[in-house]
Amino acid sequence: MTERFTPTPEDKFSFGLWTVGWQGRDPFGDATRAALDPVESVRRLAELGAYGVTFHDDDLIPFGSTDAEREGLVKRFRQALDAGGLVVPMATTNLFTHPVFKDGAFTANDRDVRRFALRKTLRNIDLAVELGATTYVAWGGREGSESGAAKDVRVALDRMKEAFDLLGDYVTEQGYDLRFAIEPKPNEPRGDILLPTIGHALAFIERLERPELVGVNPETGHEQMAGLNFPHGIAQAMWAGKLFHIDLNGQSGIKYDQDLRFGAGDLRQAFWLVDLLERGGYEGPRHFDFKPPRTEDYTGVWASAEGCMRNYLILKERAAAFRADPAVQEALRASRLDELALPTAEDGVAGLLADRSAYEEFDITTAAERGMAFEVLDQLAMDHLLGVR
Amino acid sequence: MTERFTPTPEDKFSFGLWTVGWQGRDPFGDATRAALDPVESVRRLAELGAYGVTFHDDDLIPFGSTDAEREGLVKRFRQALDAGGLVVPMATTNLFTHPVFKDGAFTANDRDVRRFALRKTLRNIDLAVELGATTYVAWGGREGSESGAAKDVRVALDRMKEAFDLLGDYVTEQGYDLRFAIEPKPNEPRGDILLPTIGHALAFIERLERPELVGVNPETGHEQMAGLNFPHGIAQAMWAGKLFHIDLNGQSGIKYDQDLRFGAGDLRQAFWLVDLLERGGYEGPRHFDFKPPRTEDYTGVWASAEGCMRNYLILKERAAAFRADPAVQEALRASRLDELALPTAEDGVAGLLADRSAYEEFDITTAAERGMAFEVLDQLAMDHLLGVR
Amino acid sequence: MTERFTPTPEDKFSFGLWTVGWQGRDPFGDATRAALDPVESVRRLAELGAYGVTFHDDDLIPFGSTDAEREGLVKRFRQALDAGGLVVPMATTNLFTHPVFKDGAFTANDRDVRRFALRKTLRNIDLAVELGATTYVAWGGREGSESGAAKDVRVALDRMKEAFDLLGDYVTEQGYDLRFAIEPKPNEPRGDILLPTIGHALAFIERLERPELVGVNPETGHEQMAGLNFPHGIAQAMWAGKLFHIDLNGQSGIKYDQDLRFGAGDLRQAFWLVDLLERGGYEGPRHFDFKPPRTEDYTGVWASAEGCMRNYLILKERAAAFRADPAVQEALRASRLDELALPTAEDGVAGLLADRSAYEEFDITTAAERGMAFEVLDQLAMDHLLGVR
Amino acid sequence: MTERFTPTPEDKFSFGLWTVGWQGRDPFGDATRAALDPVESVRRLAELGAYGVTFHDDDLIPFGSTDAEREGLVKRFRQALDAGGLVVPMATTNLFTHPVFKDGAFTANDRDVRRFALRKTLRNIDLAVELGATTYVAWGGREGSESGAAKDVRVALDRMKEAFDLLGDYVTEQGYDLRFAIEPKPNEPRGDILLPTIGHALAFIERLERPELVGVNPETGHEQMAGLNFPHGIAQAMWAGKLFHIDLNGQSGIKYDQDLRFGAGDLRQAFWLVDLLERGGYEGPRHFDFKPPRTEDYTGVWASAEGCMRNYLILKERAAAFRADPAVQEALRASRLDELALPTAEDGVAGLLADRSAYEEFDITTAAERGMAFEVLDQLAMDHLLGVR
Repeated sequence: MTERFTPTPEDKFSFGLWTVGWQGRDPFGDATRAALDPVESVRRLAELGAYGVTFHDDDLIPFGSTDAEREGLVKRFRQALDAGGLVVPMATTNLFTHPVFKDGAFTANDRDVRRFALRKTLRNIDLAVELGATTYVAWGGREGSESGAAKDVRVALDRMKEAFDLLGDYVTEQGYDLRFAIEPKPNEPRGDILLPTIGHALAFIERLERPELVGVNPETGHEQMAGLNFPHGIAQAMWAGKLFHIDLNGQSGIKYDQDLRFGAGDLRQAFWLVDLLERGGYEGPRHFDFKPPRTEDYTGVWASAEGCMRNYLILKERAAAFRADPAVQEALRASRLDELALPTAEDGVAGLLADRSAYEEFDITTAAERGMAFEVLDQLAMDHLLGVR
Repeated sequence: MTERFTPTPEDKFSFGLWTVGWQGRDPFGDATRAALDPVESVRRLAELGAYGVTFHDDDLIPFGSTDAEREGLVKRFRQALDAGGLVVPMATTNLFTHPVFKDGAFTANDRDVRRFALRKTLRNIDLAVELGATTYVAWGGREGSESGAAKDVRVALDRMKEAFDLLGDYVTEQGYDLRFAIEPKPNEPRGDILLPTIGHALAFIERLERPELVGVNPETGHEQMAGLNFPHGIAQAMWAGKLFHIDLNGQSGIKYDQDLRFGAGDLRQAFWLVDLLERGGYEGPRHFDFKPPRTEDYTGVWASAEGCMRNYLILKERAAAFRADPAVQEALRASRLDELALPTAEDGVAGLLADRSAYEEFDITTAAERGMAFEVLDQLAMDHLLGVR
Repeated sequence: MTERFTPTPEDKFSFGLWTVGWQGRDPFGDATRAALDPVESVRRLAELGAYGVTFHDDDLIPFGSTDAEREGLVKRFRQALDAGGLVVPMATTNLFTHPVFKDGAFTANDRDVRRFALRKTLRNIDLAVELGATTYVAWGGREGSESGAAKDVRVALDRMKEAFDLLGDYVTEQGYDLRFAIEPKPNEPRGDILLPTIGHALAFIERLERPELVGVNPETGHEQMAGLNFPHGIAQAMWAGKLFHIDLNGQSGIKYDQDLRFGAGDLRQAFWLVDLLERGGYEGPRHFDFKPPRTEDYTGVWASAEGCMRNYLILKERAAAFRADPAVQEALRASRLDELALPTAEDGVAGLLADRSAYEEFDITTAAERGMAFEVLDQLAMDHLLGVR
Repeated sequence: MTERFTPTPEDKFSFGLWTVGWQGRDPFGDATRAALDPVESVRRLAELGAYGVTFHDDDLIPFGSTDAEREGLVKRFRQALDAGGLVVPMATTNLFTHPVFKDGAFTANDRDVRRFALRKTLRNIDLAVELGATTYVAWGGREGSESGAAKDVRVALDRMKEAFDLLGDYVTEQGYDLRFAIEPKPNEPRGDILLPTIGHALAFIERLERPELVGVNPETGHEQMAGLNFPHGIAQAMWAGKLFHIDLNGQSGIKYDQDLRFGAGDLRQAFWLVDLLERGGYEGPRHFDFKPPRTEDYTGVWASAEGCMRNYLILKERAAAFRADPAVQEALRASRLDELALPTAEDGVAGLLADRSAYEEFDITTAAERGMAFEVLDQLAMDHLLGVR
């Protein structure tokens, strides 16, 4: 393989412990792989050139561990991180595996479940901070319903707000340097999940007591499960100043959550995503949240992890070449992207109304005949993506 | 047919002129119906028990009309409204039919198109206000792209914000009692449309200069084209105080925009929607934005319009019966909807951390074993919907 | 609840052991319910008015049981059936849970896995016949792939054909009164599954050595996961004489496989389906293949099973009333359904070509102006479904 | 651009007149391009390196033309073909644009419409044959319904069968060297279309009087509108010996019919499709059925047509390199594709039952632990697609 697509920590690639550690249990089948020691994951990811690992509390410390066990596990993990030179940029809470969360966590109808969920989260926030994380992800996978009366959505949003407000209070009181990132998903494992898309999450955040502490952690496949254009969603999150973290993977259209390696699934959206992240000033980790297919043994698992990074680097090179190509720059002008960047009406209402060329004397026929030249531009992008220019 | 489902103006049903007036032109076929005079539409809708009509500028005044023609058309229309006792609660701009808008209006790459679009909108706002409208809908159907480089989404959102800020300036300066309602749609006629869902629109509004002037006008089928639960989206819009208007119709899943009559498509979501609107304090018009199928002649058109209202009234009766049924109220308690309404942690961070019953002594096994009783509840809803209780 | 919707064995309702027995393990969560003894399932289903139960080999006899254990389990099961007066109309093989099937069974790349899968199937066919089943279902849930080169589809179809040909040889040689029913599904748990829809399965069957032995077992949700109209698919299967069995459940659109109780999901399609089955001469079991939501305890499980049957019976009553209503019959004629039943060209090519009224003198304008009256007809259906006529 | 991706007639690229000639009228907007003379289309396509053009009757001869006009138009067209060296490998009938077809053609409820549709088809078959076509495509875009009672699907399939049987009689009687190719589509412009997928069409064909005369003409976007894997569908059509023709274009997932240029949309499926067509012995035209986006002027139209061919040629080169790469061949063996090609049970039922290694002594644990090595294989495919090996 080509040397130039070999990752280094400067590329800021991170992986969840639960990704390479996924054992392959799915709705119709048992695990196909033995459990993976987090220490081994850290070691291998370091070898492959990753920069960070992330975790749910239960990935590192099995649910129900004693305090002593917990301490031991954290210590070993920390040693492995140090040995591999990896950081922990993000952590999160598992509020979905245990049956107690079957109706949700922060918005479970049962108040005691909600309180337990908050305590479980607070506890792992302490560990996250202790391990150096600056982002705390919240995926509310069980916050939702399968039937219409089972959840009063407006009331549930009150509870969701209450939870994030309390978490915000906590990190503020503790003086933690930690921000939250909400991860939207439209459905699965619930029939309909609250805050189903980037947009819904962004809108929700604006109603919090401390909106500045909360952003989003969009995942490729989650938006594509709603048929939405992922780079468009990321662009809106950036525009709102809320892209705090990102989950990269692959998804082949509207179906169950596939969590393919990055690059698999919609390759052209992956290209535009990398183009956007690299040009757009996103400085956080490039975090892969994928599941090596259940068909694979551990050789396949590590090949899959490598593939995520490799594909990112290939696309990064190609996107850079696209933007640097003078023919592309000319095509962008031919498509009037430069004009899109100009204010529409810096002259304000009065100026606009006074400008007869804007309306009364506007030559609409000529304007309508102008071609947008988007097909030439898009074929240039295809050529760069495929490496034939 | 049963008298009790006959609409009256108190039901606040309104229709777009472009709905009953749709001639049936589709991507693969020519018009199947002759043009319908707006005056005739008003007359017939009044007879059927509607309360209002709404319009795009070009529905009422064909594109390119002279000022004199315009005046005459408005006068006739106003007379018809008066004769029928109908109001105009909402109006909107056609920024999508003319080829000049092929790349969008407020976010067209061409600045002159953007300026023309704003002028066209301002002009129709004057007419809307003159005719008594208090809501102005903005559907940005052409604001989007089919290919990745054709639109810089962040820059386009700047332009979109600029447009709404300017419109807000205008109505404020004019002292108009008019609010804007953005209508989201994920795709069609563009490959991907900006502000694709209720959530994205709500989030966008928060970045405007006058967010209080702008809300949403969600459409049943548009959210369902993204596989989203429409009542859930409406609930979030209500929670945010932003449900300024609503477009009711039917859609059979993720496919092209069908605009079926209300009730057709996902009937169970229609039931929950009516339940939510009626219980939730929404006081605006129940506006139908549908297309009578192209197979129909005008007898079918009016039957279809009648069906929209009839189905709403049937579902309204059924939803009310559901909520009034003591067995349902007991089932809601059995599913702990009452507990969802309780604050989770009115004791704050400190109280929660000090509460050993919340975590250290929480009996998670017992809690996990509690059934949620949602199936009994949902079957009660089914029984009420089908009228067998 | 109304007596008239209480099921009896004459209604021919059957349930898979794996439905009420599903413990609620999903891709993101552990089991929420204790295991259910098949004997208990039989007892409760009998009480509820079911007529039959069905099973995968491993539902009844845990994978890896000894012959003695197997014998004991079968004996107990048979006693329970006798006690409850239930029959076993259908059985099937579990070729998806064990990790050995991770790449499929009849089309696994590994030949030894394919041979094992066939042997496992043959063994359970013997048991199925012994217990009186006359239909043997084959769901090839793992026959597929996530990536393009992993499966050569044409070669895999050769292997699939080989498997069904061999199974056909076996039941023929044994003189079994057993037919096979292929259950299509588009995806999940594989990225793409072979024979993804009713149509693909019907087409495949035609290439078998004994096509008469093989039909389809379509499942509501599976077709709807591809956005297809389920009643339309069933109609084509009936038209081909291949509706050997059916799996009834509910699905809310294109997403992960939900397996909701019958009636939940797309209620209007459920209505048309029952109308079709009842009018169309389908005489097999009305088999429910659903999963009581993971939120439920066993009270909810049985309520959910009851709901499946109740909803079927309500819809059956409503569909019958629809067809019996003289206004409906008139509306069907107004929509020219009677004319659809007439041959188009019983006069053959020569007659058609000689008929000037068919082309040269055809009054296309008048013909084009005829409305189809479908909206009136569909509103009558809605009225009957909702019980307001 | 690189010389090696310049098409020649040997590549067998063909285009519909309606593709480059699409004027950009969509459900929400008027035409953006002037009409294109078919003669001009032929000239330009010849210049670009195409080999053939195809047409609907009405593309060439506007609906309602006199016989004299018709004769003149055909003559000019033929001259243009001769001048450009283009052939007409396929033709088809427009049975969807005129309002008379609003409820379908071969399955319209109105018998006179069905007869007219057949006559219109017969007439164009004569022209097709006269111009040298050997394939006649039938897209039944209007054969379907929006509501449940509007079409009795079983009866409609009788009418569909009657139509194809009659067409088969006709070409047989005339001694024409012409085969039919049914083009499936799930929906749009009807809510649900009959024969919605490749599978449904293949199954239908088996019930015809002359199945050997009828195959399929699958279209990329149509299958993808149902979320189906297009190369998988093509493979099944090939397996059945029924891939008579193909429509290549691009589609971005489950939404309205986009008809993007080939390569746009799902690029990875496009790669596997080309791999399959080129390896699989398909010898028919590579026919593009796309719509240059409505944003384009004619410069964009021709760029878009060029892009279709260019992308095919790039993918063809890449697929060939993939198959020729020794590392790929080894990876295919590591994934046991060679073993998939071996018969499963050439020893028949008796042999299989006698083989204790197949079941009683099968080491299932070891077998289950074997990884399939699909991720390595798929990354090799990605590397070849992107041109980095």
